[in-house]
Amino acid sequence: MANHARDHGNKGANQGGRRAPGWSTALTHVEPNRILVRGYPVDEAMGRITFGEAIYLLLTGELPSPAIGRLMEALLVSSVDHGTTPPSTLATRHVASTGGSMRSCVAAGILAFGPYHGGDIESCMCFLDASLTLVRSGASYDDAAARMVGEYRQRHEPVPGFGHRVHTHDPRAARLFQMALELELDGEYMQMMRAVERVLNAHRDPRIPINVDGAIAAVCSDIGLDRSVGNAMFIISRVPGLVAQAHEEQQRERRMRQIDATGARYDGPPERRLPERRAERQL
Amino acid sequence: MANHARDHGNKGANQGGRRAPGWSTALTHVEPNRILVRGYPVDEAMGRITFGEAIYLLLTGELPSPAIGRLMEALLVSSVDHGTTPPSTLATRHVASTGGSMRSCVAAGILAFGPYHGGDIESCMCFLDASLTLVRSGASYDDAAARMVGEYRQRHEPVPGFGHRVHTHDPRAARLFQMALELELDGEYMQMMRAVERVLNAHRDPRIPINVDGAIAAVCSDIGLDRSVGNAMFIISRVPGLVAQAHEEQQRERRMRQIDATGARYDGPPERRLPERRAERQL
Amino acid sequence: MANHARDHGNKGANQGGRRAPGWSTALTHVEPNRILVRGYPVDEAMGRITFGEAIYLLLTGELPSPAIGRLMEALLVSSVDHGTTPPSTLATRHVASTGGSMRSCVAAGILAFGPYHGGDIESCMCFLDASLTLVRSGASYDDAAARMVGEYRQRHEPVPGFGHRVHTHDPRAARLFQMALELELDGEYMQMMRAVERVLNAHRDPRIPINVDGAIAAVCSDIGLDRSVGNAMFIISRVPGLVAQAHEEQQRERRMRQIDATGARYDGPPERRLPERRAERQL
Amino acid sequence: MANHARDHGNKGANQGGRRAPGWSTALTHVEPNRILVRGYPVDEAMGRITFGEAIYLLLTGELPSPAIGRLMEALLVSSVDHGTTPPSTLATRHVASTGGSMRSCVAAGILAFGPYHGGDIESCMCFLDASLTLVRSGASYDDAAARMVGEYRQRHEPVPGFGHRVHTHDPRAARLFQMALELELDGEYMQMMRAVERVLNAHRDPRIPINVDGAIAAVCSDIGLDRSVGNAMFIISRVPGLVAQAHEEQQRERRMRQIDATGARYDGPPERRLPERRAERQL
Repeated sequence: MANHARDHGNKGANQGGRRAPGWSTALTHVEPNRILVRGYPVDEAMGRITFGEAIYLLLTGELPSPAIGRLMEALLVSSVDHGTTPPSTLATRHVASTGGSMRSCVAAGILAFGPYHGGDIESCMCFLDASLTLVRSGASYDDAAARMVGEYRQRHEPVPGFGHRVHTHDPRAARLFQMALELELDGEYMQMMRAVERVLNAHRDPRIPINVDGAIAAVCSDIGLDRSVGNAMFIISRVPGLVAQAHEEQQRERRMRQIDATGARYDGPPERRLPERRAERQL
Repeated sequence: MANHARDHGNKGANQGGRRAPGWSTALTHVEPNRILVRGYPVDEAMGRITFGEAIYLLLTGELPSPAIGRLMEALLVSSVDHGTTPPSTLATRHVASTGGSMRSCVAAGILAFGPYHGGDIESCMCFLDASLTLVRSGASYDDAAARMVGEYRQRHEPVPGFGHRVHTHDPRAARLFQMALELELDGEYMQMMRAVERVLNAHRDPRIPINVDGAIAAVCSDIGLDRSVGNAMFIISRVPGLVAQAHEEQQRERRMRQIDATGARYDGPPERRLPERRAERQL
Repeated sequence: MANHARDHGNKGANQGGRRAPGWSTALTHVEPNRILVRGYPVDEAMGRITFGEAIYLLLTGELPSPAIGRLMEALLVSSVDHGTTPPSTLATRHVASTGGSMRSCVAAGILAFGPYHGGDIESCMCFLDASLTLVRSGASYDDAAARMVGEYRQRHEPVPGFGHRVHTHDPRAARLFQMALELELDGEYMQMMRAVERVLNAHRDPRIPINVDGAIAAVCSDIGLDRSVGNAMFIISRVPGLVAQAHEEQQRERRMRQIDATGARYDGPPERRLPERRAERQL
Repeated sequence: MANHARDHGNKGANQGGRRAPGWSTALTHVEPNRILVRGYPVDEAMGRITFGEAIYLLLTGELPSPAIGRLMEALLVSSVDHGTTPPSTLATRHVASTGGSMRSCVAAGILAFGPYHGGDIESCMCFLDASLTLVRSGASYDDAAARMVGEYRQRHEPVPGFGHRVHTHDPRAARLFQMALELELDGEYMQMMRAVERVLNAHRDPRIPINVDGAIAAVCSDIGLDRSVGNAMFIISRVPGLVAQAHEEQQRERRMRQIDATGARYDGPPERRLPERRAERQL
């Protein structure tokens, strides 16, 4: 996980009394009336790059290509909310129900993105890296996938990035892969993900689908995001959903109510299409 | 803060043994293989609306106009990061320094968006509402501003949305106001904010500038965001910054180091311009 | 809430570039191989003072009398756990259900101690202070209570420290008051609390009982704890409960399950008595 | 970490629409006006068992022996605070500095108990379990220790439970071991810990001392606490310290100040002795 600059001497020598040494940052330069994000004045970037492009810039150090920018937006839209049943949403609503501040509600929800919920992205990126190492040493994609899946089955571990509590065919994953294809951004990670899907579902019914974590993992790897920010993409994407859920809880529900995790009925607008202008739109 | 549906009987009657009643949500409908955010299939929205537009949709229930969409992007870009000195950044780095997970790092940073740091947006929105109530009952913008500022001065309270630890002229606030003007989105809240700025700085040197919280507060009110999600806009905007700061801490620094809050040197790229294509670009 | 040393000039002057000034702490002195808590070597205190006494020492600066020490222990035992229905417990269990770390589980639970849940203690201490101000200016306890209760009723606000979701007669509150009486620690705050109880329940059936928050509030005030650590006493007391709930969730339950807030059956040991030795024991 | 009841089928089948099933808890039974913690009425326990004994009861299911009860108190007192330099304390103070609520301050501090800070206890308990497995299969304590230490050295990993940022001889660890000895509670885990200390420090100067995490790990194992609550003991013990640090920050310091991590001077009472009565006292 954290690969800190190595630390010799257990927990390091006594720093208790010493002056903390100076240190460096390559992210943002701040001086009075001037803010540079990765070198770009933030006020010049405002109105000229999207939030998704700014996030890519901040995390990688460079502006994305237009195609990568579009995929970033799609990726962030994909997980913006997933209704009332995820543990993170319920953690947020329980805090909201006690009159907690918006920051407490959101923080509690984020803490519920544990290894089994949203925390899958990084482990899926690791899984794909390991699989591609086999490919680089000569194996075909399908052989590599077969070997990796075999190992997980032996350990009775679910393969990261596959399967979902609710969906047997995750529309978000499908759309992400389709867009990556259209934008010619589907690289070796997406190919490997598809190989694993083939192997995993040979003679299997019902199929175990690629879930949105898996799709995000493959996409993030192919567009050059660091493994250790993989889980962060899900956090960034879902925070607005946690905000909306906390807000709705405090607007519509009785304080300190007992929340029935599966009892919510949807009473929002029925299914609707995007206005023409947008349906055609290429971001 | 939380305006929960009123609660009669202290803390409500005994629910300990009772079944939790059903309840409703208007945010997102989830059924197997189908996800509707405010009625729109999320997979159709992917690639056709920006993350900022999706956030507006989720929080207000409707898609924004193109102009509001652009302002949302700018608003979210404005606060994406602010270097290493904010308390939230330092809280995040201290957690990162102990090998904490990305979610722990981000959650701790969000908890540091207290009343004196990012928590100002909602109170500024309230302040502007109160000021505009005076206007609606006949006062001029400047008279209303004068009366409100007077009250705060009497209570020795800083006027929310003004002044900054670092900036005497906040480039993010200026750019937001300029864009709102160009996009013809500057409404009564922005006008009132300017009136307050005039009153506050009459015969005053150095001036107390509108800060980015204040600008976001005015913009959010004019584009129809609910007061109680005002602070959330800052949280959503800064989470990527917390992610980047946690990531850099774990990549570059020694674990468990003593972090000198003011000792960071910027060693990233020097100031640079956006590529032509983007400099001209209208999102 | 926070009564920070006053801050003149909005958010203070630019400190961005300046050296952080030195500062002071009166809590704990640490030097190599020596730790003094409020002046007492921690290794000497170990085995000689209880955890509750150490907490009192840390929060007030002085060791408690033996009687206050006993009441501290009772107060901390009173709220150690309250089953599976509190929002804080459910927030903790939802995080645990995703495989979250113990610290994430506990932090999420603490964030659910909102104004309507555990957050009542400080507001009850304020309520009692205000009531006693009336007494000091000549009113009788019952007159003061009547006036205060009247004001809350007019504002349709529940009186802090009274009423409970589950209990009509809170055994923890009753026991705390009884012990305070036996230990001759029932001061003006507990007297005022009883006066409020009389006024609130005159001609009322069912009665609105003093809840454990209210009892803790009165006790903390009478033993000299600062109002702003009132809520902290509940946090300290309940953290072990959050730990036990997270642990049980991860040991006994299926990951990512849907948690039915009211569906838990108790299958632990049936009611039992303390062993003789302890039943007689005076701590 | 979390050893959830195994989960067959990736992330389990669709539960989205289903009723959540009933479930069980063995911790606390709550019914109107009656609260049983592990079977004991909480109001009977108040005043008759200490907070530390209640914690042991809650976590293990049974009351501790008097000796174990005393060791629990000592263990909880040992880590109640450690001054201003730990990352957790600084995270808490940064949140406090923004006017955050007590619960936000404490939650942020807990999130900073990462793997390199307080998170060491569980891994040390695992390390000791592995070492004792070797003993049970015939190795001597010293041989087992030598083999285990060798493995860690090969992997360039610090041995968990040894070394400290500040202390070369941790007075808390020494006192815990001494008390365990006097109370005849030093079992195989403490013996193994000492064997590791011998091996680790053979021909080594300066010595790498057992730290308080390591001592707590050995003690917890010998008194029968589950490995997965090991880290929790540190959390429970330090929460009062986080409370006191947040309180002092908000009482004494300027809001939004730049906190110099190493700049704090201690201005509390000078070293002092416990009053006679307590110095002799056997809890």
